[in-house]
Amino acid sequence: MTITITAFEKSPDRGRGLARDMRVRWALEEVGQPYEVRLVTFKTMKEPAHIALQPFGQIPTYQDGDLALFETGAIVFHVAERHAGLLPSDADARARAITWMFASLNTVEPPILEREATTYVERDKDWYHERLLMLEDRIRVRLAQLSRRLAEADWLDGAFSAGDLLMVTVLRRLENSGLLDAYPNLSAYVARGKARPAYKRAFDAQLAVFTSASSA
Amino acid sequence: MTITITAFEKSPDRGRGLARDMRVRWALEEVGQPYEVRLVTFKTMKEPAHIALQPFGQIPTYQDGDLALFETGAIVFHVAERHAGLLPSDADARARAITWMFASLNTVEPPILEREATTYVERDKDWYHERLLMLEDRIRVRLAQLSRRLAEADWLDGAFSAGDLLMVTVLRRLENSGLLDAYPNLSAYVARGKARPAYKRAFDAQLAVFTSASSA
Repeated sequence: MTITITAFEKSPDRGRGLARDMRVRWALEEVGQPYEVRLVTFKTMKEPAHIALQPFGQIPTYQDGDLALFETGAIVFHVAERHAGLLPSDADARARAITWMFASLNTVEPPILEREATTYVERDKDWYHERLLMLEDRIRVRLAQLSRRLAEADWLDGAFSAGDLLMVTVLRRLENSGLLDAYPNLSAYVARGKARPAYKRAFDAQLAVFTSASSA
Repeated sequence: MTITITAFEKSPDRGRGLARDMRVRWALEEVGQPYEVRLVTFKTMKEPAHIALQPFGQIPTYQDGDLALFETGAIVFHVAERHAGLLPSDADARARAITWMFASLNTVEPPILEREATTYVERDKDWYHERLLMLEDRIRVRLAQLSRRLAEADWLDGAFSAGDLLMVTVLRRLENSGLLDAYPNLSAYVARGKARPAYKRAFDAQLAVFTSASSA
């Protein structure tokens, strides 16, 4: 059976690997599973065929035989559960790694995404700068807490896990903001994630899609 | 071994069951697991002893012997994985139920939480009403998509699951907003969740904490 995921034909991040297919590609690379990619456009992802797979009209989706999944966290978990390499085998350590998956997506990412949305949607509003500062304060609270917890460790809880994979991709969204600079251990953590061979393979694969779409 | 969770000594929602311990209580009631509750205040939840359990200084936490977890989604998943009643036994159906757990927390809840945060933090700003309308438009997009997917079904994918448990608690946050009124199938879905005996037991238990704190 071939795993097929969906990704943007032309990612709005211009190949920086911030679209969510990157998270799934990285997970599949970590566990050594080959996959195929079906590209969608902003138009086709709102059409009934895609909505049947992804009710919110987003990417990525995941298909493997009769199984169709959506939602990045769920797909990464599915991959991690079925193949060695992304979750510890010890039951308690596994539960803690899953905790970090949810924490990265539900506690750390929301204010970061909100800041991103604000820079798109509210840039022309006269409140833009004041709100941006409020959001950055909210982000700093989370970064300070995360930095304190990570301390001098390489990863959030023992060996690299799907929780680190998601957290690194969440923190990467701040790379151009300067907000990570105040937390050297978090910057080093992100760099450590990006140095993994599986990350690099995933990154190159998504970049190749953008580059080929741009030169077409 | 006794399961111990944390909850607010005096919940800011005044016992309406919107604090996140409600989700964990409901899950434990669905699977028939007894649990104890340790109450924290806004002061004690920021102290080192609680931060060691919950790095972001929030509730709930979950302790069972040597295992300590945080993050509601992860705790509900842990409960669902260890006890029958919240995840289907068929592997594909189980993966789809987990998809809805992530979708409720990562796709549906964020704009709802953002609206809630705005009503607390930006109420005195001159942009407040304009931003509130923008956020409500974002919420309506998600509700329309969810309503279309649910259609006439009782639950999101076959039998009631942890995905429904989380989605119902997410949608409940809109109860006083009027935003659910345009989607009768979603209102009925929330009512269906609240009619479950396990929901009622969990709700009564969290309300009893608030009532007793208020009369103390």
